Amino acid sequence: MIQASIITIGDELLIGQVIVAVGDNWQNIWNALNEEAESAEIILITGGLGPTADDITKPLLCEYFGGKLIVDPGALANVKDIFERVLKRPMIERNLKQAEVPDTSTVIQNKRGTAPGMWFEKNGRIFVSMPGVPYEMKGMMTDEVIPRLKTRFSLPVILHRTLLVAGIGESFIAEHIQLFESALPEWIRLAYLPNYGMVRLRLTASGNQKEKLERDLDEQFDQLRVLVAEWLVIDEDLSMQQVIGNILVEKDQTLSTAESCTGGYIAHLLTSVPGSSRYYQGGVVSYSNNVKENILRVNHEILSSSGAVSEATVLKMVSGALDVFKTDYGIATSGIMGPGGGTAEKPVGTVWVAVGNAQKIIARQFYFRFDRQRNIELTSTFGLNLLRKFILTGAV
Amino acid sequence: MIQASIITIGDELLIGQVIVAVGDNWQNIWNALNEEAESAEIILITGGLGPTADDITKPLLCEYFGGKLIVDPGALANVKDIFERVLKRPMIERNLKQAEVPDTSTVIQNKRGTAPGMWFEKNGRIFVSMPGVPYEMKGMMTDEVIPRLKTRFSLPVILHRTLLVAGIGESFIAEHIQLFESALPEWIRLAYLPNYGMVRLRLTASGNQKEKLERDLDEQFDQLRVLVAEWLVIDEDLSMQQVIGNILVEKDQTLSTAESCTGGYIAHLLTSVPGSSRYYQGGVVSYSNNVKENILRVNHEILSSSGAVSEATVLKMVSGALDVFKTDYGIATSGIMGPGGGTAEKPVGTVWVAVGNAQKIIARQFYFRFDRQRNIELTSTFGLNLLRKFILTGAV
Repeated sequence: MIQASIITIGDELLIGQVIVAVGDNWQNIWNALNEEAESAEIILITGGLGPTADDITKPLLCEYFGGKLIVDPGALANVKDIFERVLKRPMIERNLKQAEVPDTSTVIQNKRGTAPGMWFEKNGRIFVSMPGVPYEMKGMMTDEVIPRLKTRFSLPVILHRTLLVAGIGESFIAEHIQLFESALPEWIRLAYLPNYGMVRLRLTASGNQKEKLERDLDEQFDQLRVLVAEWLVIDEDLSMQQVIGNILVEKDQTLSTAESCTGGYIAHLLTSVPGSSRYYQGGVVSYSNNVKENILRVNHEILSSSGAVSEATVLKMVSGALDVFKTDYGIATSGIMGPGGGTAEKPVGTVWVAVGNAQKIIARQFYFRFDRQRNIELTSTFGLNLLRKFILTGAV
Repeated sequence: MIQASIITIGDELLIGQVIVAVGDNWQNIWNALNEEAESAEIILITGGLGPTADDITKPLLCEYFGGKLIVDPGALANVKDIFERVLKRPMIERNLKQAEVPDTSTVIQNKRGTAPGMWFEKNGRIFVSMPGVPYEMKGMMTDEVIPRLKTRFSLPVILHRTLLVAGIGESFIAEHIQLFESALPEWIRLAYLPNYGMVRLRLTASGNQKEKLERDLDEQFDQLRVLVAEWLVIDEDLSMQQVIGNILVEKDQTLSTAESCTGGYIAHLLTSVPGSSRYYQGGVVSYSNNVKENILRVNHEILSSSGAVSEATVLKMVSGALDVFKTDYGIATSGIMGPGGGTAEKPVGTVWVAVGNAQKIIARQFYFRFDRQRNIELTSTFGLNLLRKFILTGAV
């Protein structure tokens, strides 16, 4: 049997931790526990706690730390409550087993699911076993595990400041802030977190004196903000759609969408923000030309002469959306996302986006060269950035 | 400094590999290379090849494997081509550095980005360094790395068969197929891959005799398919929206959407399938009541007496969508996704979904208990499953 290992490198992924991923294999999990405990004081274990037979973590932990499996009354009450009150269906024997824990563990109750967390200590090391479902694991980590760890260790201070830039590539940003970056003190690091036409720049300061670190970090962050002002979307860790939402709430104005090639993805991004109903009225996914004509009132002549993927069409789609939804601003997209549908004149990746209001509508053309999913995401974030600029300045 | 390790457990994640994640730290990367080469024949390295100063992988590989950095003509031509033809902007010095590789490596050209892959051999181990961008890495892995590895190793045969079930929880499925699972031969394993109200069941056979494995796997898969028939969506590795698309193409029928609480996410799922314009005409994101009234023709009295989140409203939203879009089928959603907006009578997580055609429209109520994003995703997949059943059987 050939053995392969994967090493993933990058501060974007993590800052100083080691992650080991193992399959549901007794010996591999056992070895991972032994090996990690050699170098780490804290070993966080996720996954392998589900009710199905492929999950062997709990019996293994029982043997690794000694002791025997017992039913925890708190965990049992939680499992019963979730079935009675939330799932509203009868429990089966297998679900009851979720409440079993090794009697050598301290139980951490799971507010979001049936599998309890378990805290073990052995040879001066702390081991915490958590469910693998990300939603449950993150909640347990934030609510229970980190507060308990803080009482046991005097942890170093780690501070982050993040800003978002758009319309400039990672390498150009790096070139532009080269001197700033090389002059950073050694206790402050810069990470580039690129994602779909945007780059998040994160400064991380670590040390022991919180006040001094905060001062240093603020000073560097202010410099960085000035350096990237031309492309700056926001100097906080917010998404493009949150930024647009905040601006519209501030201005007490409204927005609608008319999407062809993005197929509802811009609407989804906007409505993923809690409270978006304050400014987002609604949208049309005009996937067929009939919908473009009948709901958005794009003239039949435009569609037949210029085609659905054209400047004339997206301009009309915005004015149609403004009429139909009676909003202050509108955004429209039309393009060829692939893999099929391209022509010599309009190859896959050709996209038109328009943004505007009752006074002015502006269109821009883009070319993307990725797979369908990525072309949709890029069109959406580039489009939202045009919209943000238009709302702020009346231009793009 | 306290050191923490993370161990993630689960066959869902991987089958037999070990993954080590390290930050952009010279010593940690160096140690990971040494340690993984002790047990693995193949070491795959991803990330750390970007043009920014936080990327130290290439100089490190140069020192680790000996040799010096030289410009690879093929990689240089690729970088130039991407800037001239695709990005249409001037290159800077930093971009040229992307074409540098250690002269001890065999270069693997990157068809999807600027950073080339590098293949090294040392002490009988193969090391492959690939870019961290998932789109680029997956393409390079599939097109270049796996074919080259196949010529060097006689790899075992690994076969998968996957089916998708919906409307039943992981633990109930496990209970239901307990005898089947425990009677599986040791060379066939079953994995549960739960995701948003659906569970993917994957049988994996591994060994050396391909024909025998295929026969064994087919036999077991046939048994499994019969056992889960009641909840079976499809006996292939397809998504719910692909399944619905295939059915509609087969029937030559059309679909429209009227989304309130899912805010365009159902439209996005449907249009993420290539060729979906054949059956998906379009949709309305009716986030405000005005849009429900003016475009979908939901009576004002219904909205004021029953409320937007009600059976009466989603029934009318479907008939409105059928009228406006002139499609064979329609689906509508309305609910309270949270975190705000709940009341004692209609708490956060209350959702109504309706599906139907000109003859019949059926509504169902759900309660979800997660965060906004997960409630949106669950409403969308539960709704699409109702739609699938309705199209197939006229009932849900």
